[in-house]
Amino acid sequence: MFEAIELGQSLSKKEFKLAEQQFRTELLQLQQQLIKQNIPVLIIVAGVEGAGKGDVVDSLNKWFDSRGMMTHAFWDETDEQKERPEYWRYWMSLPARGLISIMFGGWYWDPIYQHSMGRLDEAGLDEAAQRIKDLEDTLHQDGVLIIKLWFHLAKKTFRSRLKNGSEAAKHIKTDADDHHGGLEYAPFLASAERMIRHTDTSVSTWSLIESEDRRFRDMSVVEVIRNGFKQRLGEHRVADRRVAVTAPLPETENSSVTVLDTLDMSVALSKSDYKEQLQHYQTKLSQLAWQAYDAKHSTVIVFEGWDAAGKGGAIRRLTDTMDARLYRSISVAAPTDEELAHHYLWRFWRQVPRAGYMTLYDRSWYGRVLVERVEGLAQPHEWLRAYQEINDFEEQLVDSGIVLLKFWLHISPEEQLRRFEERQQIPWKQHKLTDEDWRNRDKWDAYAQAVNEMVLRTSTGKVPWSLIPANNKFHARIEVLKTVCQRLETVLKDN
Amino acid sequence: MFEAIELGQSLSKKEFKLAEQQFRTELLQLQQQLIKQNIPVLIIVAGVEGAGKGDVVDSLNKWFDSRGMMTHAFWDETDEQKERPEYWRYWMSLPARGLISIMFGGWYWDPIYQHSMGRLDEAGLDEAAQRIKDLEDTLHQDGVLIIKLWFHLAKKTFRSRLKNGSEAAKHIKTDADDHHGGLEYAPFLASAERMIRHTDTSVSTWSLIESEDRRFRDMSVVEVIRNGFKQRLGEHRVADRRVAVTAPLPETENSSVTVLDTLDMSVALSKSDYKEQLQHYQTKLSQLAWQAYDAKHSTVIVFEGWDAAGKGGAIRRLTDTMDARLYRSISVAAPTDEELAHHYLWRFWRQVPRAGYMTLYDRSWYGRVLVERVEGLAQPHEWLRAYQEINDFEEQLVDSGIVLLKFWLHISPEEQLRRFEERQQIPWKQHKLTDEDWRNRDKWDAYAQAVNEMVLRTSTGKVPWSLIPANNKFHARIEVLKTVCQRLETVLKDN
Repeated sequence: MFEAIELGQSLSKKEFKLAEQQFRTELLQLQQQLIKQNIPVLIIVAGVEGAGKGDVVDSLNKWFDSRGMMTHAFWDETDEQKERPEYWRYWMSLPARGLISIMFGGWYWDPIYQHSMGRLDEAGLDEAAQRIKDLEDTLHQDGVLIIKLWFHLAKKTFRSRLKNGSEAAKHIKTDADDHHGGLEYAPFLASAERMIRHTDTSVSTWSLIESEDRRFRDMSVVEVIRNGFKQRLGEHRVADRRVAVTAPLPETENSSVTVLDTLDMSVALSKSDYKEQLQHYQTKLSQLAWQAYDAKHSTVIVFEGWDAAGKGGAIRRLTDTMDARLYRSISVAAPTDEELAHHYLWRFWRQVPRAGYMTLYDRSWYGRVLVERVEGLAQPHEWLRAYQEINDFEEQLVDSGIVLLKFWLHISPEEQLRRFEERQQIPWKQHKLTDEDWRNRDKWDAYAQAVNEMVLRTSTGKVPWSLIPANNKFHARIEVLKTVCQRLETVLKDN
Repeated sequence: MFEAIELGQSLSKKEFKLAEQQFRTELLQLQQQLIKQNIPVLIIVAGVEGAGKGDVVDSLNKWFDSRGMMTHAFWDETDEQKERPEYWRYWMSLPARGLISIMFGGWYWDPIYQHSMGRLDEAGLDEAAQRIKDLEDTLHQDGVLIIKLWFHLAKKTFRSRLKNGSEAAKHIKTDADDHHGGLEYAPFLASAERMIRHTDTSVSTWSLIESEDRRFRDMSVVEVIRNGFKQRLGEHRVADRRVAVTAPLPETENSSVTVLDTLDMSVALSKSDYKEQLQHYQTKLSQLAWQAYDAKHSTVIVFEGWDAAGKGGAIRRLTDTMDARLYRSISVAAPTDEELAHHYLWRFWRQVPRAGYMTLYDRSWYGRVLVERVEGLAQPHEWLRAYQEINDFEEQLVDSGIVLLKFWLHISPEEQLRRFEERQQIPWKQHKLTDEDWRNRDKWDAYAQAVNEMVLRTSTGKVPWSLIPANNKFHARIEVLKTVCQRLETVLKDN
């Protein structure tokens, strides 16, 4: 693949200067239009050592209005990063709408490097490529313009540049775990070629750039970026032209029976049994939380359910005896403007806990396929692809060692009405009951369908939904506690 | 001091239940009003081990609408935190407007603990107290309601609770560097008493709470918080009633001669000298940047100056040969809503670099006393106290080992006009020239006064301003490069 661009192309100083007069103005104007249209741009700068990636980034910062740009490198990992899923650092570096993010290597560097060093097999490389394709597809669907640049040097040039030695090479440690030591030209290019072939898609193409000559290289970058910007600005991306990416809805969708109807709503627990079991499980959980901390296992627990189903109460029974240093409970509120300027999952990535800690969500990323779907706050093409995005997200959490549990607390419409009326009576509960709650009640069937489909599409082998009958609060709380304890015990035993 | 609250006070279950009926509603209503009025609340929960601080936090989460609350503990430091100034973690945990932040120990725990262990002398403790007072004063001025709770146990109770042993104690390491090991009752209380006495101010009072009895303790907390909220909501805080906190302006303020007039604007450099020195210093800087990285010294460089004074060009000459992984250049743009919801310095704290990295600011926190002052975007009482706040902020940066440099690039009004007109001619520079630039030009004298006062009040021994005559770009760029190189060399030699 790469030999096709080993052509020895170059550009004279005069030619370049002349071109620069033109393209600088043009690039700035294009950037202005991207800002105006709120388009986020991601530029990935990758390639062989010595090809001048750093110089290119400097030039980009000169040509564009740098107020709208941010550069990210991922070479000097912090423990904040190490204690979170691999992609956390990338999500945190994604561009907000109207901004340009430049990533050195991005999500490509690590799998290519590991494979070329023989630490990742071919299946592992291909799996990484698939994950990357899924993410880039998600970003594209969300409106991100992705430009991927690979800077190439012929073997001879590569060798001579390395021999001269970069200042960086002297200072970067080259032990076995380091990302930069011991690179061999041929295996590295073989790994890169395989990765590039697998991730060169219609929504996110690679541009290979011959980098023997500095000016030719820079001019090539300008052309790729200019074309990418222009093409994107010329597109008429309208919502209804986008294609839904998930399979057609299953038949149950139009049925009035949902998975929720299969729950035995008569289960109950006496107060004395409740008190006894509560103490038992709470004591156990407070110990398990410390053991999980020692074992560096994070836990994420999601609570969804009807209004007044008892989510807050169940969360409080979990945290009651846990050390307050070990958990964080998050009630999902309106997103901030920084959050709105990113993919809807960004704000949840942001909150992923460090190793050993627990995060409890009172409502979660499932809002996308529940309230946003039913209330029309997300377009069908948006919530339809959310199932896949959520599964990917959760898989990454689990793969990084996070224990993830999801609870749907289910009550009957009659029980909800009873609780609403009760809330009206108790002064400190009145604030919990809003007009919106009454409006949501009228849409019970639409929500039930949404829940049914959510369970169908996101209850996976790795992360199943726990559907909890919650007409009886005692029963529901103990069920939740028991489930969490059992899960933690299993995980910690396997440790 | 503490013996005054060793009274053995308690509350019956019945009394507490009855009170709870009342205060829960009241607390919720008060929280609603605080949200409505956009008041940020900081609650610091401190005291002896075993007094039930965690339980109190759980109760607060139950009583209040937890969507508006966030709890922060500072016991399990990450290297992201260790590599930044001590207060970075606290700034990152401050409440946004309308929200409640609860801090375990907050900025109090560390100095009290270190002093009680004999690792910090009395002068050190008092210095810490002074820093805390300055910060709390700043927060108060910015509208934060600060509530500080100290939970006390008599020696006998303390001993018996420790003997039973907390789950936490078993899991937290107790090596010499750990924050939780080896605490002795008497020395700890002696240190605490001194700290409390020094930081019990009119804007941020301490409440000592007897914690022998769980219900009495919780009821005391409720009363303190309720009173604090009520008092704050009853205050008519209007801008013009606040008192300026800095000294009256010096006489030069009304003079038309400023410090800028003392600069020799005739200095210049020939193109050939420029090229030679540029190469010399850039080569040197690219090496120094790696040495600073190895030595874990961060560098922060601030650029202020007239429009078209050449800030961007000077920054580019610094970064040209530096490895792009080692620096980040930040052009100060409009704050996001998350940033607006905090103290104006919060967003700069946010950007403080990790150890070993360089951050370059094209405009900075000095906007508060320059553009915001001149354009009336900040009230006089706000920009007047900003000098002190900025000095405190910069002192903390320097104390944590960060190398901080500040440049004012100075050009004459005539030279500015010439550059404006030139910008109109060059297509890719036109975007840099806005109507605002022309308007700012009309306020030259007001800006000159503001600069003069800025230099007067913030050019400190530790962090002096470098005023650079910049009518000649070659000269200015070399001056900046030379200053940065010399400073880094000195710092690295002292290492």
